[in-house]
Amino acid sequence: MKLRMGMIGGGEGSLIGPVHRMAARLDGMTGLVCGAFSSDPVVSAATGAAEGTDSSRIYDTWQEMITRERSLPEDIRPHFISVVTPNYLHYGPAKMALEAGFHVVCDKPLCMSVAEAVDLHETVERTGRLFCLTHNYTGYPMVKRAREMVLGGEIGIVRKVAVEYFQGWLSSPVETTGNRQAEWRSDPRKAGIAGAMADIGTHAFNLSEYVSGMEVAELSADLGSVVPGRLLDDDGSVLLHFENGARGTLLASQIAIGEENNLSLRIYGDKGSISWRQMEPNSLTVLWPDRPAQLYRTGTAFTETGVAAPMHTRIPAGHPEGFIEAFANLYSNFARHIIALSEGREREPLADYPGIYEGVRGMKFLEAVVASGKNNSTKRAV
Amino acid sequence: MKLRMGMIGGGEGSLIGPVHRMAARLDGMTGLVCGAFSSDPVVSAATGAAEGTDSSRIYDTWQEMITRERSLPEDIRPHFISVVTPNYLHYGPAKMALEAGFHVVCDKPLCMSVAEAVDLHETVERTGRLFCLTHNYTGYPMVKRAREMVLGGEIGIVRKVAVEYFQGWLSSPVETTGNRQAEWRSDPRKAGIAGAMADIGTHAFNLSEYVSGMEVAELSADLGSVVPGRLLDDDGSVLLHFENGARGTLLASQIAIGEENNLSLRIYGDKGSISWRQMEPNSLTVLWPDRPAQLYRTGTAFTETGVAAPMHTRIPAGHPEGFIEAFANLYSNFARHIIALSEGREREPLADYPGIYEGVRGMKFLEAVVASGKNNSTKRAV
Amino acid sequence: MKLRMGMIGGGEGSLIGPVHRMAARLDGMTGLVCGAFSSDPVVSAATGAAEGTDSSRIYDTWQEMITRERSLPEDIRPHFISVVTPNYLHYGPAKMALEAGFHVVCDKPLCMSVAEAVDLHETVERTGRLFCLTHNYTGYPMVKRAREMVLGGEIGIVRKVAVEYFQGWLSSPVETTGNRQAEWRSDPRKAGIAGAMADIGTHAFNLSEYVSGMEVAELSADLGSVVPGRLLDDDGSVLLHFENGARGTLLASQIAIGEENNLSLRIYGDKGSISWRQMEPNSLTVLWPDRPAQLYRTGTAFTETGVAAPMHTRIPAGHPEGFIEAFANLYSNFARHIIALSEGREREPLADYPGIYEGVRGMKFLEAVVASGKNNSTKRAV
Amino acid sequence: MKLRMGMIGGGEGSLIGPVHRMAARLDGMTGLVCGAFSSDPVVSAATGAAEGTDSSRIYDTWQEMITRERSLPEDIRPHFISVVTPNYLHYGPAKMALEAGFHVVCDKPLCMSVAEAVDLHETVERTGRLFCLTHNYTGYPMVKRAREMVLGGEIGIVRKVAVEYFQGWLSSPVETTGNRQAEWRSDPRKAGIAGAMADIGTHAFNLSEYVSGMEVAELSADLGSVVPGRLLDDDGSVLLHFENGARGTLLASQIAIGEENNLSLRIYGDKGSISWRQMEPNSLTVLWPDRPAQLYRTGTAFTETGVAAPMHTRIPAGHPEGFIEAFANLYSNFARHIIALSEGREREPLADYPGIYEGVRGMKFLEAVVASGKNNSTKRAV
Repeated sequence: MKLRMGMIGGGEGSLIGPVHRMAARLDGMTGLVCGAFSSDPVVSAATGAAEGTDSSRIYDTWQEMITRERSLPEDIRPHFISVVTPNYLHYGPAKMALEAGFHVVCDKPLCMSVAEAVDLHETVERTGRLFCLTHNYTGYPMVKRAREMVLGGEIGIVRKVAVEYFQGWLSSPVETTGNRQAEWRSDPRKAGIAGAMADIGTHAFNLSEYVSGMEVAELSADLGSVVPGRLLDDDGSVLLHFENGARGTLLASQIAIGEENNLSLRIYGDKGSISWRQMEPNSLTVLWPDRPAQLYRTGTAFTETGVAAPMHTRIPAGHPEGFIEAFANLYSNFARHIIALSEGREREPLADYPGIYEGVRGMKFLEAVVASGKNNSTKRAV
Repeated sequence: MKLRMGMIGGGEGSLIGPVHRMAARLDGMTGLVCGAFSSDPVVSAATGAAEGTDSSRIYDTWQEMITRERSLPEDIRPHFISVVTPNYLHYGPAKMALEAGFHVVCDKPLCMSVAEAVDLHETVERTGRLFCLTHNYTGYPMVKRAREMVLGGEIGIVRKVAVEYFQGWLSSPVETTGNRQAEWRSDPRKAGIAGAMADIGTHAFNLSEYVSGMEVAELSADLGSVVPGRLLDDDGSVLLHFENGARGTLLASQIAIGEENNLSLRIYGDKGSISWRQMEPNSLTVLWPDRPAQLYRTGTAFTETGVAAPMHTRIPAGHPEGFIEAFANLYSNFARHIIALSEGREREPLADYPGIYEGVRGMKFLEAVVASGKNNSTKRAV
Repeated sequence: MKLRMGMIGGGEGSLIGPVHRMAARLDGMTGLVCGAFSSDPVVSAATGAAEGTDSSRIYDTWQEMITRERSLPEDIRPHFISVVTPNYLHYGPAKMALEAGFHVVCDKPLCMSVAEAVDLHETVERTGRLFCLTHNYTGYPMVKRAREMVLGGEIGIVRKVAVEYFQGWLSSPVETTGNRQAEWRSDPRKAGIAGAMADIGTHAFNLSEYVSGMEVAELSADLGSVVPGRLLDDDGSVLLHFENGARGTLLASQIAIGEENNLSLRIYGDKGSISWRQMEPNSLTVLWPDRPAQLYRTGTAFTETGVAAPMHTRIPAGHPEGFIEAFANLYSNFARHIIALSEGREREPLADYPGIYEGVRGMKFLEAVVASGKNNSTKRAV
Repeated sequence: MKLRMGMIGGGEGSLIGPVHRMAARLDGMTGLVCGAFSSDPVVSAATGAAEGTDSSRIYDTWQEMITRERSLPEDIRPHFISVVTPNYLHYGPAKMALEAGFHVVCDKPLCMSVAEAVDLHETVERTGRLFCLTHNYTGYPMVKRAREMVLGGEIGIVRKVAVEYFQGWLSSPVETTGNRQAEWRSDPRKAGIAGAMADIGTHAFNLSEYVSGMEVAELSADLGSVVPGRLLDDDGSVLLHFENGARGTLLASQIAIGEENNLSLRIYGDKGSISWRQMEPNSLTVLWPDRPAQLYRTGTAFTETGVAAPMHTRIPAGHPEGFIEAFANLYSNFARHIIALSEGREREPLADYPGIYEGVRGMKFLEAVVASGKNNSTKRAV
């Protein structure tokens, strides 16, 4: 059974649209059948044509797409719709798609406010539709292995979490020189209340909660808009307290010149520690108090590699899998859940993906971070 | 225009079959339409079903597939056929497919002898069909950048080439314990005259000639069958002399315990040097005599990143692309050439892929290496 | 001219005493002539004997040593005295030695309070003696190069500083199981108001001010005593604001299991960035917005290596220099200043070492960090 | 007891002389008392003065030094003499010093021919003097640990050895532009029959035999003089067969542009593998067939760190020890043996250092390599 996908956003010039399409395609489980790829009908049509989409199913607006596609026969209409628009255009399409009976994949952050997030959460629960939020870094095999280790007690009680996400691409005011990715991300009307914290901070936040298996209880944030004229934060540091009392730090910056996409996570327990870096994602360094550090690797068949990682690996060790493969793991797991749901089977817990709850958490994080940042780094609950 | 692919080999349990299919799929340029996936009809049928192939186009034998598919209408029959069988089953299917008018993708090494290789070369030239040999490591962006640098004279005259390919998976006699990948690779009837040299040595050889832009003129080889009872080489070292007088070494082993897929290439010129490692493929280290080493990176937009690498990159720097993406670069370039040919357009030289000539070189390398290895490492021309 | 050194502390079982002695010895500029190595006369005598110190110049107490040695002829008595005792025993010996006319080397942190520090500062200024505080990490060639780059404007205006110092050796209550290093460091009477922040946080703080050439203006701290029963902090995170408005973070932990001595510094400017790691100290990674990252290396003779690094390097590139060599750079620079002073020559600015001012800064940092940590991470001036 | 050292060679401008002196000094076991530092009496005097050597014991010639110093009282004359001259000046001074009753430290390679080497070997045996050949890379703690692992069977039977030593400093004809280090190394009268193979190849050879605990039985070499006008080899590759049948490769080059001092060793057994790199000497990577790779580290206190490494380590893990410390391990072990001999105690086997036997092996290696290189890479016994 091959799933059918519709897409909202992701027109030519989009960064993340093509990634979603490659991710959906990679494992051969999903095919694109319809789209409203852009608010510009010409762009939408061109994108659909390049993708080989039937021209009758390329739409000028997402409203039109959802309305028309819901009326198509069950074996033709999409199983799910991917929303890959800028932040301010997540809530509306996601809500309407859910109400129309479609499962939904949505890019992050979920929406523009906690209120919207809670409403979407309610909608998902009420409609019984499946929802995937593409915090794609959770799709890496070694991230899944790290989570499995932490949840399995292999590093003991978590004491300290250090997550960090540094980029440099916004170190000059590129939003004023025609960079479309930068334009909407630095525009509060389109990006929301936060800049770097929304774009990458939420990834870091989600990763820290996903791997630690714990929630952040409160935080203190120091946010800056370093590049003159920029309205939203482009650099920030956050002190975290987790629910079990563990401390942590979340550092995110888009003005760290020369940094590419430097996301890393370290978790220190009372029995051991783990360290992972997105830019070399196939290694997980495991540190112990009483024996040498070990290098766990994607694609190995050792006991230490665990169960979750091999489920999300395609090729043997040493043949690097990357960003697209990790992203595809979300899509393929989502597809497996849709199929299981449609066949009345139980869903495989290890075939997981971030969902609506993680979306609500992300919005709570953003509101807390911004409030703390504006109030002299006072503590805020998350 | 989406191309149609047929496949010979790659049934369930195959390692490389799924890789070819993911690679073909990734960029959305190619779809699988027919296959003779296994000599076992049950396996062939199951594989095709899992791939969503129309059951009428799943065949019991490759002969039957080629015969039937060639008679289908032009807009239905495959544009090309991928041959992903063990070595001894390359020549026959490739030859028949070419003669039937199909373009061909073939796994490496090309065939079982220089004689077969020369015959295939003649067949390709006579039929005017396109031929891609999947020396997939040439598909990495940083490998393409390395070649561009060497050919552009950026490191000066090449003086020394050190290529190395170490694996450990054959360090025990796994071919006697049910490992199918090991079984045929260690069986002279299926693998040919060489073991490790055929399986990975030819990759290293191809990489060294591809990036240096030079051919090996002569070599001296020291081959060993380290694991008791093994008939073919599982470890070897080769001294190389290139046509311009540069020296080199090619080290390949499958008994290097703990090594995953450790392919690396270093080329030293009289102005600079380059170093690349497949297991961290998005970096190219460039060394200079009079200034600090530089790290060239996939996805960067700098002058130093050149022209060829960006053409073969999908996402910005820091979002790692891996083995499948590199493999897909061969498929997508091959597809572009097929389309260009069909439209009477000139083919883009930078959208390159290894072809039949590289296949002949590989077989010459193997015959020379084996002859030298059996004769006390005496020198042999390649 | 070879300088004569006296030593207070550093008896058998000491960690840092032997390091000071090796550092003093390495470049052949200084010889140990007298010592009060321990409060236990037996230990002091044994240490002196092992060092080959004349038994008449091994003392039971530091008071006795200073009193006696000051009365020796000028060509016999030490040029300077190294104080390598636990924190609570810095102020007294340093003060008395200065007043007695000796130059002083003192381990860090300077003392137990800002008040003591200010008093020592006044003493140094009044006596005209030289004072070296062994923030030894400033002695690494690549740290000196980093500072030179920042001060020379090579990375532009500093925007962000991320300094981090993680260790794991205090992740269990080793102070209760006979570890002497841990005992005094976790005892407020001997260590002072802070634990990890005093032991390693001050190093990180000093490094950030040294390399950035800027002072921290205010900070917010989150300190924890993670190991049950521990009285002082063993883990902490600090948000920093520098005088120019740049933000920063200082993370220090001694409960990060498996971490050895993981000190790192990254500074992001508006033209470039630098990154350095103490555990691989001979590399300095330099990142640029518009060209590939570069690897500056100790011992290279390139323009990019600058002036300060070669002055502090002994052997050519690729022959790693380590911790002791960096420590020795402080001793040798201190010796050069003593000689210059004695000869009435001007002191070489690049032959620098941390001094009494840095000691005062460190104590201000500690008092601010502890105050903020106890008050819900409120901001404190430094 | 502090030992007294005399030195032959190592005058101002020497590279290795100061290293020997720092290495002798570091652990406080040895002091320089006399020297004939240069064939130029002015240079010799200046070097001695800078070292603080008594002017009456600075000599114009090494013959004069040995003659005079042997007649000094036993408690004044040196315990040993270090010979740190160019290759052609090893045999004479070493021989005369041994005959005069001095122990000898000598730089590598031992001398100019196997005949000289055998004669020195005989001299050492006859005189009962101790002899240390400074193959200094054996002094690194992780090298000692590697040897201990191999000899203890921890990686099983050795199957493959890959040793490599790449430098770039001779990639242009610097010997014609006033580089004194290059001048004598490229002059057959001073360097002997080999260039790169003598200068660094012998280090690699020694390291491979030291760590593997096996001897090379035969080899095939491919040597080149890449830089025009150079008389000796500056680049070479050697196929090795060890006495137990294991294969290996030794690659050495001084024209590998941009390489600093890139010596590495990998040994593959039938149970595990080890990998070590001199430029990051405090790590030893250990690979296993059935579990994740481990990182053994200098200064750790784990069972896996073994016995030999801690004996040769000064400071805790994470405080990097480097080239000088490793060199000092040879000097300090040599000093321990001298003391043990003088006190009639047994010498500690783990406090080892390379000796005269290793010197003979090195010369045999050189003669075999050069003979094979001149004869079309034919096999030669070592």
